[in-house]
Amino acid sequence: MLYFIGLGLGDEKDITVRGLEAVRKCKRVFLEMYTSILATPKERLEELYDKKIEVADRETVESNADLILNNAHEDDVAFLVVGDPFGATTHTDMILRAKQRGIPFSVIHNASIMNAIGCCGLQLYNYGQSVSICFFTETWRPDSFYDKIAFNVKGGLHSLCLLDIKVKEPNLDAMMRGKVVYDPPRYMTVNQAVEQLLEVSDKKRDAGETPVYDRKTIAAGLARVGQSDQRIISGTLEELLTADFGAPLHSLVLAGTMHILEIEMLASFAVNPQTFVPLLESHR
Amino acid sequence: MLYFIGLGLGDEKDITVRGLEAVRKCKRVFLEMYTSILATPKERLEELYDKKIEVADRETVESNADLILNNAHEDDVAFLVVGDPFGATTHTDMILRAKQRGIPFSVIHNASIMNAIGCCGLQLYNYGQSVSICFFTETWRPDSFYDKIAFNVKGGLHSLCLLDIKVKEPNLDAMMRGKVVYDPPRYMTVNQAVEQLLEVSDKKRDAGETPVYDRKTIAAGLARVGQSDQRIISGTLEELLTADFGAPLHSLVLAGTMHILEIEMLASFAVNPQTFVPLLESHR
Repeated sequence: MLYFIGLGLGDEKDITVRGLEAVRKCKRVFLEMYTSILATPKERLEELYDKKIEVADRETVESNADLILNNAHEDDVAFLVVGDPFGATTHTDMILRAKQRGIPFSVIHNASIMNAIGCCGLQLYNYGQSVSICFFTETWRPDSFYDKIAFNVKGGLHSLCLLDIKVKEPNLDAMMRGKVVYDPPRYMTVNQAVEQLLEVSDKKRDAGETPVYDRKTIAAGLARVGQSDQRIISGTLEELLTADFGAPLHSLVLAGTMHILEIEMLASFAVNPQTFVPLLESHR
Repeated sequence: MLYFIGLGLGDEKDITVRGLEAVRKCKRVFLEMYTSILATPKERLEELYDKKIEVADRETVESNADLILNNAHEDDVAFLVVGDPFGATTHTDMILRAKQRGIPFSVIHNASIMNAIGCCGLQLYNYGQSVSICFFTETWRPDSFYDKIAFNVKGGLHSLCLLDIKVKEPNLDAMMRGKVVYDPPRYMTVNQAVEQLLEVSDKKRDAGETPVYDRKTIAAGLARVGQSDQRIISGTLEELLTADFGAPLHSLVLAGTMHILEIEMLASFAVNPQTFVPLLESHR
């Protein structure tokens, strides 16, 4: 049996009781570590599970998935995923392969940023499509998020922005010299995301368009959601440019049309309470 | 301390280890039981937690929340919620009140239908806004879901339909006779939801419009997501009209534009595999 087990967003104790029982009876335990980050050292998990954990990096999961799948025909194998097992396309791909090869499998769900984001106060059913913000480089500044946000704005919907993670990325200079060297991991901050968002909206304005969001747009930045030192700060994009969110992972939400309960909840995280006064008053 | 604890979607073992530790040290334990249903008898929870559980119905949560909040100033109190604590507006409202009154609180996240829906194979970042389908009555047939689905369709996005739950609804006839009698609980089935969806799209067609979905639209019906007897059936809306999903809770997803991986995964749940053949071929 192959168990796909969501670990949730916090530390070793955010696994479910069902998940814990499953992992404890597994012969091999793999941990996917490149689409998200674990909020606690791997050793803490090993201690609670009483199991040795093998880290599965991008190469293992995407190119050598058989290594994991093959074991599951006869033995119990666990594939651990930060958040929920259906959070990333690559996990769905592995579940599909298990299904196609007739390998018995079981999915144990958990919280992920896609539902835990509700903690900022903006109600989940008022979100449109989520968008990904990738690190801009000198030569590559993909701004497809803008059109998706524009679409959400048109429907009065909130936009969850998932911020880029670069883990175990091969260094291009080294690669050209025929060597495999990995860059240190990078996690986009809320500040960087807002900077990139505003670069794109400024460009729209310079081109004569009225951008769908700007420095005055209400938003919430979130860091380490579901962890004990979680931080939520709300304000205008301008205010979030310089707010300090601390360690990764960060997420960002642009607010669409808000109900009074959403405004009240969001306002409770304000970096500058004055920002929300007119919004609150217009609803009273 | 007031603990808002998500129970996830399955039985008593779907609480997280953190949630279990918290509830075990609480003096009073409330369980919200009207925005969703618990997949297991309350007694199973009580046994695992080693605690007596008080059921909090709509009246308690919406009108007498102070009863729950007041205890949390001095004692540890747990408020248990099926799914995630931020799944329903009414929970957010209670969290906001705790915050405003300076009651220390802690949120323990878990899976909810909003992220576990990924199990049908349609990727979470390709969903638009979710829609609610309410039971039609003789005189009240609210179809605001149609415009929301139409909006999602325009963006090529999937639509999660949350199906109506009627628990502890006062019986209107009895009410007019001055008595309080509650109707038996009702949970909308996928079949009923599809029937209502098609009633509305047929009406659009009769009025000369081209509806944004019809009998041929690809969809997935899901029942008891995250439970051991979970059922996922995909096909056209017409095919889902008569598919048997068994006991509640049910959910429905209308597919937007799909990537090949999404089609492959969805096809693996087909009531009629032939339905997916042209879709799969057009992507190969």
